[in-house]
Amino acid sequence: MAPPEETDPRPARLSRRRLLGYTAVGVGGAVAGAGSALAATQDAPPPVDAVGTRTVAFHGPHQAGVTTPAQARAVFAGLDLRDGVGAEAIGRLLRLWTQDAAALTAGRPATADPAPTLAERPAGLTVTFGFGPGLFDAIGRPDAVPAGFVPAPTFPIDRLLPRWSDGDLLVQVCADDSIAAAHAVRVLLVGARPFATVRWQQSGFLPHAGVAPGTTPRNLMGQLDGTANPTENDGLDDVVWSREGWLAGGTTMILRRIRMDLDEWDRVPPPEQEQAIGRRLSDGAPLTGGREHDPADFSRRDHHGLVIPADAHIRRARPHHGQDRILRRGYSYDDGVDTDGNPDAGLLFASYQASFHRQFLPVQRRLAALDALNTWTTPVGSAVFAIPPGCEPGGWIGQTLLESAADGP
Amino acid sequence: MAPPEETDPRPARLSRRRLLGYTAVGVGGAVAGAGSALAATQDAPPPVDAVGTRTVAFHGPHQAGVTTPAQARAVFAGLDLRDGVGAEAIGRLLRLWTQDAAALTAGRPATADPAPTLAERPAGLTVTFGFGPGLFDAIGRPDAVPAGFVPAPTFPIDRLLPRWSDGDLLVQVCADDSIAAAHAVRVLLVGARPFATVRWQQSGFLPHAGVAPGTTPRNLMGQLDGTANPTENDGLDDVVWSREGWLAGGTTMILRRIRMDLDEWDRVPPPEQEQAIGRRLSDGAPLTGGREHDPADFSRRDHHGLVIPADAHIRRARPHHGQDRILRRGYSYDDGVDTDGNPDAGLLFASYQASFHRQFLPVQRRLAALDALNTWTTPVGSAVFAIPPGCEPGGWIGQTLLESAADGP
Repeated sequence: MAPPEETDPRPARLSRRRLLGYTAVGVGGAVAGAGSALAATQDAPPPVDAVGTRTVAFHGPHQAGVTTPAQARAVFAGLDLRDGVGAEAIGRLLRLWTQDAAALTAGRPATADPAPTLAERPAGLTVTFGFGPGLFDAIGRPDAVPAGFVPAPTFPIDRLLPRWSDGDLLVQVCADDSIAAAHAVRVLLVGARPFATVRWQQSGFLPHAGVAPGTTPRNLMGQLDGTANPTENDGLDDVVWSREGWLAGGTTMILRRIRMDLDEWDRVPPPEQEQAIGRRLSDGAPLTGGREHDPADFSRRDHHGLVIPADAHIRRARPHHGQDRILRRGYSYDDGVDTDGNPDAGLLFASYQASFHRQFLPVQRRLAALDALNTWTTPVGSAVFAIPPGCEPGGWIGQTLLESAADGP
Repeated sequence: MAPPEETDPRPARLSRRRLLGYTAVGVGGAVAGAGSALAATQDAPPPVDAVGTRTVAFHGPHQAGVTTPAQARAVFAGLDLRDGVGAEAIGRLLRLWTQDAAALTAGRPATADPAPTLAERPAGLTVTFGFGPGLFDAIGRPDAVPAGFVPAPTFPIDRLLPRWSDGDLLVQVCADDSIAAAHAVRVLLVGARPFATVRWQQSGFLPHAGVAPGTTPRNLMGQLDGTANPTENDGLDDVVWSREGWLAGGTTMILRRIRMDLDEWDRVPPPEQEQAIGRRLSDGAPLTGGREHDPADFSRRDHHGLVIPADAHIRRARPHHGQDRILRRGYSYDDGVDTDGNPDAGLLFASYQASFHRQFLPVQRRLAALDALNTWTTPVGSAVFAIPPGCEPGGWIGQTLLESAADGP
């Protein structure tokens, strides 16, 4: 396999697109985080097919797909490195992946793209790469593993299946179109074949573009999910982006597949459902009143006791001392029925935080110990990944870790 | 289980919606077939969330979801009747299903909806019910089975798995939003529990709303798929809607799960890929020239022989004597990797035709005998259903068959 060229082909191809009658139009707004600067290319006549031609910048200090406003479709793939694949080979894979992701997210075919026409409408495609604990062993850099990753975190509530857990590499693909996402995943996984095998692949959904703009999405339990997320004006960058060592500009991520027992949940009267979450089902406002984004009054009592019960999800999940905040970017999944005929649906819970052990682990330990929602949810998969920082044209994802490790530990 | 009321609750609920500030706005265009008249309700400000609030009429001479322009997401569920469930019980189920489908497609919660908020944005939801061969046995009406359904059609190319085949009842749910579709499927399948078990459930995708409007969708092989479909001005109604007996105003449907060997397909040079289909990959035009919708010249030869080869898909699939036309409404599926790590992706091929044995079977026999695409495709599931006609408010789907059968054969 020849090493891919490291030059960025964008300027030449953009010129070709212009010759073919495309126009590149910058579109403002709808950008949630630093580093996720949004650009859009539109065919005439805009905005009829603007969903398809929208692009999200690949290059920058951070990888896209983390603070980028969540697209309608996500596919997550976890890969296992083949035996003997070390730092040098992983570097070659990441150069190839970087080049292909930069092309696909801009609406151009990847290197040796098997279906170039499927690359024409990226629909806000983002590609995000991550490193599991095993990768650090493979490159001889156990010192570089983010704190809290090893031993792998498991909790008393977990019923983890190997089928949905662990992995040395993550490919996260999000887009506002299922075909754009499927094509990108296919291209990237085929490119990885000499280096790694696919351990699992799972996909989820949020409201499609144009369905419920500007609102917090609902999960399959009917709850607004993500209300308490940090925003750009409320510490988003500090919550998400690491400043430490090779991971500076990157983050840590955990993906937990949380199966929902919707049959049992549906039998719970709505007032009890609301007490389990601590918010109203109708509009997501705290049970102590106000609107969705108003603060909850966790001390308020009525004649029944605490208005937001001791085991309510929002009480257990709320940050302590402001440190343990996370960015959740969950996607619902509905995989139909399993081989026993039981519904297989729930939430692909993805959480991003600068420090895994200072931010995520305390929250998750509290929830595992006590959370009313645990009655109707079962974590069946879990995988942790370091998300390296972004790169500029000419660079590649993972460079900050791998170039320092290429000579061995 | 109490029998559901047969009254249609729409007028009262529409009034309630108006009181809550909704306005109902009729939107023209984008309607492909008789009986699929399109209405839309929009919250202010249109058209920002018009994808979510769009509705497709449920009532009419035909069920929606057949000639309705295909939405972005489809979920198909096949159910087996429980032992002892006969015409009377099936009639109760279909009254309930009719009432729930009428509500959900209008953006209202179903009877005993477990998550009413998930019903608020139907996103062009359609629900289509079908009857498999076993249902006719259960009601003692083997005489009413559409011709060609029994024995179940299998072809030499088929490698059918029970996991994806057969079924006594079909629920087909399509919408421009995955959450709207998931919610409707959940409600309808829970409602069916006293009567039937879920045999299989499969979901697929087409371009999301706003991604590639007005274009023929591409499948995962990169081909434009559906170019030769009948249109409203080109015999659509005659192709699709039956005029015979209880099925008058209905149709027949076959759903085939066709797994694609994309790895092998990707190794085929594009010119050979084009010869396999008989069309250009870039724009779908026949290899004999012109544009996508221009007729192919099947007799033209060059120095290599026939320009559109003898085994090209479009040569084998084209109608003979104008009779054997079908309406295909295929959805791509990408279910990740199977337990052996192999990609599980392909096409949920749904075909609708007034006469199964006069229209579908001749086409499929020709394709099974010779079709270049068979090299890279394997049918792994197959199920046939009679799609009853639509109903007016106060009626119910299946009435034309079941009311005549309720007293036994």
